[in-house]
Amino acid sequence: MARIVAKFGGTSVADTARIEKAADKIAREVALGHEVAVIVSAMSGVTNQLIEYCAAISETYDVREYDTVVASGEQVTAGLMAIALQKRGISARSWLGWQVPIISDEVHSKARIQDIKTPLMEDSLKNKHVAVLAGFQGVTTEKRITTLGRGGSDTTAVALAAALKADRCDIYTDVDGIYTTDPRIVPEARKITRISYEEMLELASLGAKVLQVRSVEMAYKQNVPVQVLSSFDDAIGSDLPGTLVTKEEDIMEQYVVNGVAFAKDEAKVTVLGVPDVPGVAAKLFGPLADAAINVDMIVQNISPDSTKTDMTFTIPQTDLAHALEVLKSQELFKNSEIRTATDVAKVSVVGIGMRSHAGVAKTMFAALAEKGINIQVISTSEIKVSVLIAKEYLELAVRALHAAYGLEKAA
Amino acid sequence: MARIVAKFGGTSVADTARIEKAADKIAREVALGHEVAVIVSAMSGVTNQLIEYCAAISETYDVREYDTVVASGEQVTAGLMAIALQKRGISARSWLGWQVPIISDEVHSKARIQDIKTPLMEDSLKNKHVAVLAGFQGVTTEKRITTLGRGGSDTTAVALAAALKADRCDIYTDVDGIYTTDPRIVPEARKITRISYEEMLELASLGAKVLQVRSVEMAYKQNVPVQVLSSFDDAIGSDLPGTLVTKEEDIMEQYVVNGVAFAKDEAKVTVLGVPDVPGVAAKLFGPLADAAINVDMIVQNISPDSTKTDMTFTIPQTDLAHALEVLKSQELFKNSEIRTATDVAKVSVVGIGMRSHAGVAKTMFAALAEKGINIQVISTSEIKVSVLIAKEYLELAVRALHAAYGLEKAA
Repeated sequence: MARIVAKFGGTSVADTARIEKAADKIAREVALGHEVAVIVSAMSGVTNQLIEYCAAISETYDVREYDTVVASGEQVTAGLMAIALQKRGISARSWLGWQVPIISDEVHSKARIQDIKTPLMEDSLKNKHVAVLAGFQGVTTEKRITTLGRGGSDTTAVALAAALKADRCDIYTDVDGIYTTDPRIVPEARKITRISYEEMLELASLGAKVLQVRSVEMAYKQNVPVQVLSSFDDAIGSDLPGTLVTKEEDIMEQYVVNGVAFAKDEAKVTVLGVPDVPGVAAKLFGPLADAAINVDMIVQNISPDSTKTDMTFTIPQTDLAHALEVLKSQELFKNSEIRTATDVAKVSVVGIGMRSHAGVAKTMFAALAEKGINIQVISTSEIKVSVLIAKEYLELAVRALHAAYGLEKAA
Repeated sequence: MARIVAKFGGTSVADTARIEKAADKIAREVALGHEVAVIVSAMSGVTNQLIEYCAAISETYDVREYDTVVASGEQVTAGLMAIALQKRGISARSWLGWQVPIISDEVHSKARIQDIKTPLMEDSLKNKHVAVLAGFQGVTTEKRITTLGRGGSDTTAVALAAALKADRCDIYTDVDGIYTTDPRIVPEARKITRISYEEMLELASLGAKVLQVRSVEMAYKQNVPVQVLSSFDDAIGSDLPGTLVTKEEDIMEQYVVNGVAFAKDEAKVTVLGVPDVPGVAAKLFGPLADAAINVDMIVQNISPDSTKTDMTFTIPQTDLAHALEVLKSQELFKNSEIRTATDVAKVSVVGIGMRSHAGVAKTMFAALAEKGINIQVISTSEIKVSVLIAKEYLELAVRALHAAYGLEKAA
């Protein structure tokens, strides 16, 4: 007997028919003797509709009221899921954030969970009642409803799994796992059976948007095994059909490189002729950080004139205009020439095995050179090598790298 | 300065545009210096959609889960209304049933309010914050969400007005008041300026479905003046444009008859050849009451054979099949001939002035006779005379009675 937290995302509870399919899966887990807590998202489209209502009335809506409005979506699904489970002869009840309660901070619309009071749910699970929890929501100590921000139901699921000391947290979604890269670009992409938290964090933040980054961080810290699997397949979580995100030491077959990730929404900024003096980087990046602009890759070039240097970095395209404003307002850079480019893409190879294997970067550079792809910026971490290239070469680069590391082959 | 509770029904908060119109009205009340608490229903169609979801999954859904699902509709409107008020520079916040809290019994889907804890709302109102309360919902002492049954937002409004000792409870709806009869049948029907609780109760239960009966009963008991008015007009509640339901002694201009009500959903049942012995009525109506079938008019006819009698009564058409089953299962009636008719209608004249005026019934019978309308059953109360007639004569009868009592003329 295991204790399982199973989370169903929006497409997995899109309508009442999909809710019933999800209930069928839970019923099979219960029949195996498992204790199950279920986390549900809002039905497809509901959250967006509710956000539109708020925005239609006021663009500067009170986020406390926004949270009250938007949290209703998960409330509906929780009640319906409980009804669907009861129809299958399973004892079940819904739990809203304030009923558990799931205490959060007061940062409405992107609150963080501070504490989950589990005694009531523990009792419920031990008596073989399935607990159906509305995802994405919490309550402040002042009894106002909060929401956890987009993708927050993943966070609810992982946090509850940690609080209940669950054996596994299954995230049912519309894909059947994490792939070595996007199968739309590389048809040979292979589903990864097991992946470490660290690798998943790199992949999540690099664009494989299956799991919310915050939920992976929490799973890592709390050591909760998380499985990504499809609600559209026949298999249930206990069949382990998806990708298990877990501790490095629980992964037997280690690949040097586990995936090729990419991002197309970056902008490259080059500031020319910056005085080459100590502290200039702080003067450049300090104000950007203050403006909440997330700088990713950074390269400092050697300039022919040794008193000046060029700085190149990447930021999200959506922050480009804001970043230029910030830079131009600085005394030090107001006369600098600034060049920008949005026709760039970042490609990364990720793998925990890199730590103990030399030559990963060499293989990458060779594979790209062979296809005539120019590397504009390079950045590396312990388990990742990223390069910035012209966007038009993106698919070519991803395919070349996937093949170069032999990712299509099972271990 | 007055304290006002204002309730907006489904069509008055049909969409975000209507919510903004309602907020405009509240803003005008606030500008007059009034303390205002607002009760909102779900946006048009939302409650039905949510009920359909429950029924689509299971016809025998758990009413506790049904309540969790359905109560979300008012939650959304409460948040949106608070946002709309804030946009108008008014300090406002939403309150859900469990936040106030509004304690109800545990009869889910048709719960009754037991207690409203007002200290938090009182504080809020005294500080000139508009309190926006989700109608139709409560919470049990076990912290499960309840709903108050159809039309329950009216009850929430009246109960809150009583608890807050409000000067008036304004029910904004899609009609501009209570009329002497249905203007679709009698174009000359006149809007009633003031009406007593007792008369309103008779009119409400007789088919003028503007106010939920339970809310009128509560207003009567708690002595809360209730105004029915239109959210589609320019006037606000403090202009007193609608119909005020209030104490008899607060009504200056008294009519003998105040309105002509009717109901088309009644069925007539006649049980022939019932033994004319003491206790037979109890044996007939006892089992019907046990089956929760509401018997309305009752007539016991004298039978030619003095050992037997015929009993005629009316019940809602929807209960007819069930009632026949119940009767046939009784030893005493299983061989009785039972005749039923659904082509009947009940017409009633209502007026508190009847108590002190003779001749009201006489005028009624004469007016109907003059049009050749046969009366099948008569029943009377202190402030009402009802007759059952063939349904095809309904409109003719209503027009004849409206004219006979001169209801088109203002006092």
